[in-house]
Amino acid sequence: MTRPPHNPLLDGKAAPPLLVVLSGPSGVGKDSVLNRMRDLNFPFHFVVTATNRTIRPGEIDGFDYHFVTTERFETMIESHELLEWALVYGQYKGIPKFEVRQAMATGRDVMLRINVDGAATVRQIAPEAVFIFLAPSSTDELRQRLSVRRTENTNEIEARLAVAATELKQVEHFDYVVINREGHLDEAVNQIRAIIAAEKQRVFPRMVSL
Amino acid sequence: MTRPPHNPLLDGKAAPPLLVVLSGPSGVGKDSVLNRMRDLNFPFHFVVTATNRTIRPGEIDGFDYHFVTTERFETMIESHELLEWALVYGQYKGIPKFEVRQAMATGRDVMLRINVDGAATVRQIAPEAVFIFLAPSSTDELRQRLSVRRTENTNEIEARLAVAATELKQVEHFDYVVINREGHLDEAVNQIRAIIAAEKQRVFPRMVSL
Repeated sequence: MTRPPHNPLLDGKAAPPLLVVLSGPSGVGKDSVLNRMRDLNFPFHFVVTATNRTIRPGEIDGFDYHFVTTERFETMIESHELLEWALVYGQYKGIPKFEVRQAMATGRDVMLRINVDGAATVRQIAPEAVFIFLAPSSTDELRQRLSVRRTENTNEIEARLAVAATELKQVEHFDYVVINREGHLDEAVNQIRAIIAAEKQRVFPRMVSL
Repeated sequence: MTRPPHNPLLDGKAAPPLLVVLSGPSGVGKDSVLNRMRDLNFPFHFVVTATNRTIRPGEIDGFDYHFVTTERFETMIESHELLEWALVYGQYKGIPKFEVRQAMATGRDVMLRINVDGAATVRQIAPEAVFIFLAPSSTDELRQRLSVRRTENTNEIEARLAVAATELKQVEHFDYVVINREGHLDEAVNQIRAIIAAEKQRVFPRMVSL
């Protein structure tokens, strides 16, 4: 996906790096898509989110999340070290600014995985980012996925589905919509790949500054 | 590239067909790119341009061009049967409207290959089309290509290069720029494929009406 700058308007200068925001309702499979892109060595800097929640079996600190204490997270909020943060279901999640800035400063594209509210915050700060909305192919599929995860009880699942219904309406604020259809993960991944490749060919590249 | 409509905003309706305009300076290789896409069975209706020029060895009437008499071409102009037409180097070239309308009415994406002036005309009629500018990687490469073609003499080649320099400046009116680098035809084709795929994922699809 990286290639020499060819756009005649760029005068031989490299195209600016992209900031790609991957969002969508809880349970839609943002993590699965992201992990698949990592496995396929997508040439992105994948920003690692900070959280105060408990590490789950199989998760790796600094890879899946930066797992920090509640106290440390609140210090990060107070000292404006986060691009965006939220308290979701009693858990803090936030994006350390330094990671995004560092990566973009070295010309690398950056991929953020955030919830729909977080995307709205980033849109205010960086409207020139590429906003991709990951959607389920149906509510049933979303319920199924939340149930399989088994870390939530039934009430929590229904609460999340209600939130998801609201979040789905936010699609109109995004640039692209990609469906993560059960059993077709690579279809979603390939669509995201095409979106990134197309954005690289824009005559007027998006200029993101944070 | 075709798939069921998934965009939540489309309410189960199929996304409208795309009108894709492939343009660029004379000699940049629009025909090579187009023929390669045809060979690869890109799911497009490739509009066949009408012309009054003499058929070249190896060309097929109704496939490479609709070869018509000068008299017939001028009748098509007078009766507004052409979406766009031009008199280029003493030869008429134009796009029959019925082909574009017919294809789009049946939901098929349409690909037009036209020169830079023609693209400007189509932009006025159909601003929601996808405008792709095919560019050479250098002027030398363009000169080389025009020379190899051997159907033009040296003066004609220099005249075309002068025109090409002007045409290159028109890139700023296009959505995307794709470089047709010598020996890397499939790179250009793949970038066009990605652009089309990405356009299919837009939250608000382009609505073209002619």
